[in-house]
Amino acid sequence: MRDVYFQGVGMVKCGRFNERIEINAARACINALKDAGINWREVQAAYATHVMQGVSAGQKVVSQIGLTGLNVTNVENACASGSTGIHHAYYDVASGKYDIVLVVGFEKMQKGVIDSNSGERSYEDKMGMRIMPGEYAMKAQRHMYEYGTTPEQMARVSVKNHKNGCYNPYAHYQKELTLEEVLHSRMISDPLTLLQACPTSDGAAAAILVSENVAKKNNNRDLIKLIGTSVQTESVFEEEDLTTRTANTAYEMANVGPEDINLAEVHDAFTIGELLHYEALGFCELGESGRLIDEGVTEISGSLPVSPSGGLQSRGHPLGMTGIAQVCEIVWQLRGESKQRQVRNNPKVGLTHTQGAGGVCSVSIISK
Amino acid sequence: MRDVYFQGVGMVKCGRFNERIEINAARACINALKDAGINWREVQAAYATHVMQGVSAGQKVVSQIGLTGLNVTNVENACASGSTGIHHAYYDVASGKYDIVLVVGFEKMQKGVIDSNSGERSYEDKMGMRIMPGEYAMKAQRHMYEYGTTPEQMARVSVKNHKNGCYNPYAHYQKELTLEEVLHSRMISDPLTLLQACPTSDGAAAAILVSENVAKKNNNRDLIKLIGTSVQTESVFEEEDLTTRTANTAYEMANVGPEDINLAEVHDAFTIGELLHYEALGFCELGESGRLIDEGVTEISGSLPVSPSGGLQSRGHPLGMTGIAQVCEIVWQLRGESKQRQVRNNPKVGLTHTQGAGGVCSVSIISK
Repeated sequence: MRDVYFQGVGMVKCGRFNERIEINAARACINALKDAGINWREVQAAYATHVMQGVSAGQKVVSQIGLTGLNVTNVENACASGSTGIHHAYYDVASGKYDIVLVVGFEKMQKGVIDSNSGERSYEDKMGMRIMPGEYAMKAQRHMYEYGTTPEQMARVSVKNHKNGCYNPYAHYQKELTLEEVLHSRMISDPLTLLQACPTSDGAAAAILVSENVAKKNNNRDLIKLIGTSVQTESVFEEEDLTTRTANTAYEMANVGPEDINLAEVHDAFTIGELLHYEALGFCELGESGRLIDEGVTEISGSLPVSPSGGLQSRGHPLGMTGIAQVCEIVWQLRGESKQRQVRNNPKVGLTHTQGAGGVCSVSIISK
Repeated sequence: MRDVYFQGVGMVKCGRFNERIEINAARACINALKDAGINWREVQAAYATHVMQGVSAGQKVVSQIGLTGLNVTNVENACASGSTGIHHAYYDVASGKYDIVLVVGFEKMQKGVIDSNSGERSYEDKMGMRIMPGEYAMKAQRHMYEYGTTPEQMARVSVKNHKNGCYNPYAHYQKELTLEEVLHSRMISDPLTLLQACPTSDGAAAAILVSENVAKKNNNRDLIKLIGTSVQTESVFEEEDLTTRTANTAYEMANVGPEDINLAEVHDAFTIGELLHYEALGFCELGESGRLIDEGVTEISGSLPVSPSGGLQSRGHPLGMTGIAQVCEIVWQLRGESKQRQVRNNPKVGLTHTQGAGGVCSVSIISK
């Protein structure tokens, strides 16, 4: 297998769009092409990752840029759609099938809650608890019971990520929140308040993966390499197992451990999620995530910054885009291009983590 | 790249199901596993191909069989979804990433017409002509004008494929139709009558692709190899170009030409489609497809049998299943297992062809 590099990444600002989603998705592609210094005609295959944009949405995006006959495949894996696209693009390049592959993730969101889509038919289902806020609230309650984690610690994830989003021009929200504002916002599903849930955002992001010979041609920047990628499906009820096993596969492939990660973008759809993922990704011991956020370890200024982009909480969570937006952030950070939200100490290794309904998880490890 | 084999295939009977689609999709997987002599725990990755079965539908299917942590990816490419899944599974095995990959295609269809999803905003759109029967009718009118193709020749495709379906226990319909019945059924979109449109069917099919070392272990049957696969996106308005270019890529990869094909399953969503594809696939010259059907060349007893399964017209067209069902038929035919519908003369090379809304086409070439 060959080495695989991120030659270019691009986004559009998350928010609520009036334009058709394929227009914004095409803009994200064009931004990524410009960043890569690659001509559209050189792109050999594309993955279009989205959850609910309808039949052949990827073909519509590509039609906006120009039809070149390339292979376009629509990929859906719930919230892990974008990272699943990255995974497949990686192997297309690693195997020598292609030299230049585009992944574009996009979503125009509908209103309303998303159900957990567990496929189960249980009393919880009938009682309306198997919607996403309900699922995460149950996990939060259990974590509080097991480890003494507090509502304040969860709320602090929202405060941190909203602060980070203020420095990201692509984030949906550029607004700092106080701990009190988060804690005293409307209760959604005890203990999770409204400002601990990711907003409903539209968005599009793109990444271009290339082989070494392409990456080394006319490139004056740091080469950014994808060194680990894993997509796994496990029971939705064993979140720690799912993320841990997926991460371990990616760590093994990349030949690194959690101690080598300099920054990460993790799936903070709800604040408790980010805390759970600290533990499952091996950033701390089980039950220690509250301490991590309290001590500021995962702030931009901390020793292991998490979601400097603002994360799902502030940047937004257009489902099919999220995995690609995370990649954009890690690439910019490793290149040192993140300006006011640049993490310190010249980071070398970043991690992305997404988790989707139905029990799917993806972890990527990126290095320079 | 390594050689890739179909170790097992399996289906459920097409029709209108009451069961949840994931139950039937799981049955198709189990049938394919049995046919392959492979244990579920040996499967390393899965593609779930469907168009409108909702978020993480593939994960739900896999959950029915047992969660083993494997990578499950949902793939959507309109009517070419199944064959796109086959394409990606091929490269997963060819590249050495995996040895055993499952592709399961399934669909529970909604009622009503499917729009052409061209993404275009034209007068044709506004006039309601850009639904599938309208699109195919316009192509039929043009073919009649250009080449003198007749309504009888188109109707003969339906007669042939319905006759073939009578011998396929998995087909939705086992009912012969006369030319008169087809021609005098209700006019849908001139010149296409109701019995020239594929029915609305639910269904599921699965295929297991393996590396040579797996294929050669404990196998007393003919080894069936996937030797060419191509997925391309082009303008939806240039159907001949789209199919021709995609087929040429697959022919080149397989190192065969149309003259080497012993049987084919082609995309006969509407009867005119099958005729157009004869030409685009190189089975005859432009404008000669009417003659081909008149002369019985594409009957099961002919020199180039097309859609011995009954095709979309009679077997049915559950969107995400179709490409996999075509593969099932070719595998059974090459193994000589197709009983009453077995094509003659010990066929060596088969072709599958699917075409999807949005301008996507896939061609696979399979040999023993």
